[in-house]
Amino acid sequence: MYDLMIIGGGPAGLCASVYAARKQLKTVLISVDIGGQMNNTVGIENWLGYQFIDAADLISRFQDHVSQFPIDQKIGHKISRMKKIDGGFEAVTDSGDRYQAKVALVATGKRPRKLNVSGETELTGRGVTYCAICDGPVFAEQKVAVIGGGNSAVEAVLDMLKIAEHVDLISLTPLTADPILVNQMSGAKNLDTFIEYQTVKIEGRDFAEGLVIKDLKSSKEKRLDVTGVLIEIGLVPNSDAVKELVPLNKTGEVPISCACETTVPGLFAAGDVTDVPEKQIIIAAGEGAKAALQAHHYLQRLAEQ
Amino acid sequence: MYDLMIIGGGPAGLCASVYAARKQLKTVLISVDIGGQMNNTVGIENWLGYQFIDAADLISRFQDHVSQFPIDQKIGHKISRMKKIDGGFEAVTDSGDRYQAKVALVATGKRPRKLNVSGETELTGRGVTYCAICDGPVFAEQKVAVIGGGNSAVEAVLDMLKIAEHVDLISLTPLTADPILVNQMSGAKNLDTFIEYQTVKIEGRDFAEGLVIKDLKSSKEKRLDVTGVLIEIGLVPNSDAVKELVPLNKTGEVPISCACETTVPGLFAAGDVTDVPEKQIIIAAGEGAKAALQAHHYLQRLAEQ
Repeated sequence: MYDLMIIGGGPAGLCASVYAARKQLKTVLISVDIGGQMNNTVGIENWLGYQFIDAADLISRFQDHVSQFPIDQKIGHKISRMKKIDGGFEAVTDSGDRYQAKVALVATGKRPRKLNVSGETELTGRGVTYCAICDGPVFAEQKVAVIGGGNSAVEAVLDMLKIAEHVDLISLTPLTADPILVNQMSGAKNLDTFIEYQTVKIEGRDFAEGLVIKDLKSSKEKRLDVTGVLIEIGLVPNSDAVKELVPLNKTGEVPISCACETTVPGLFAAGDVTDVPEKQIIIAAGEGAKAALQAHHYLQRLAEQ
Repeated sequence: MYDLMIIGGGPAGLCASVYAARKQLKTVLISVDIGGQMNNTVGIENWLGYQFIDAADLISRFQDHVSQFPIDQKIGHKISRMKKIDGGFEAVTDSGDRYQAKVALVATGKRPRKLNVSGETELTGRGVTYCAICDGPVFAEQKVAVIGGGNSAVEAVLDMLKIAEHVDLISLTPLTADPILVNQMSGAKNLDTFIEYQTVKIEGRDFAEGLVIKDLKSSKEKRLDVTGVLIEIGLVPNSDAVKELVPLNKTGEVPISCACETTVPGLFAAGDVTDVPEKQIIIAAGEGAKAALQAHHYLQRLAEQ
């Protein structure tokens, strides 16, 4: 039995690993990947100390830091279910492997949200993508639509403006992206914006061929001729594995105290899977450090009993 | 009037500056220094992404990142008092300069705690120091005492063991430092440890000459012959300037919500000056980012009214 199991290898889980190792906790890190949502971006401009760094470089730096410590790393494994056992917690992977620890830290992050419209599932990977960063280059010289109004949507627009023939931006709400980003796309000649428009359906036989959108004010529908649909409408928490262990909030996040405690003693959570007020790499990393230190205190109290 | 004034240039204030600039807030950063308590350390091993980095290098990286943005930096200025004014806050410096902003973020960190024993004030800078890291080398080949039981005390011992003739470690409580650090000093031949001993007084005429300590169990006193006294017994919050603006907790920290809000609307706080459960560079940075984003939301709500 481990002292601590850390589920998730994004910034929260990796920073927690460094702190757990420094406290000499017997730790296992179980994760689908290393880097988490950082894998869905190319360049990072808001990791303190770097005006710009490739996401892959920063992930690699994080991984090197963690790998210098004697932590068991089980990468490529998805936890399907976690439960309370006598003296701790057990996590079961998709392939049936079991891990047990006195204390558990859930740092499983978030995944892209779906539109839930006709054509979306059928055409995913056939012109429809949830990772503009990863798949954008496929659509060079094509007409594309970016759906969303936040930072990731506007960043996708900025990237696509450089390589696509034409970009349509469709947002259900007024844009919520940082002004610094919105300003960068103003005046672009190959951009049309449809603000307060709903996406009704995605059309196409074998590959995406078009999009039907509806003006929320006039209720008028309009068809856009696009061969790429880049959906950037936010994220949903990866909290399925713990939903029977701990009550989630209405968006599916794990509620935590300011000390990263859940309502279950010995179960901590950190980063984007929680209800922490803001989701950023540096915030997740800080929360991971906090959670590991709090887990250490908890283990010390257990040992004293 | 600025949108946001950030008081303090440690990791919390610097990370907040980056995030405020990206939200295009008209921001002033006022601080005694850049780096805060990072200036009291030499090497950093727990900033995610660096197995080791000189503190001065990391401070310089942070500073470069902030300096690329159009933020007014007022460095070398100490805020003596902050107060609520119509539409925001006013901060007054020691030299009488005044700054006004709609929203304020207190990120003033902590400073070393004093022992409050006879001889301490008189001999400060004459053998007595609160920054082992800064002043340790002065005591090469001398007999020194390190007072404290946490990470910074044990780190000071480890540094001094290499250069001093002999080191006495005096701790009022059992050691609370990370085991990884405590293990590194075990077996050292030029080290004596006095655990659960109280420091009674520091002796010396022009310079420190000795130390009187008392065994808490036997109440017996003992004199140690040392010419260097390195005091590492924790930190006190730099919250004097806001103590009439916002109620502090019993240790003098600014209580905050998980969203870095104080009890005063529009007044945010982040990092070591707050009651955030753990004090670490990466945690302070994450809290600074969170506070800046929350300050931005607050300003948006103000603008909508």
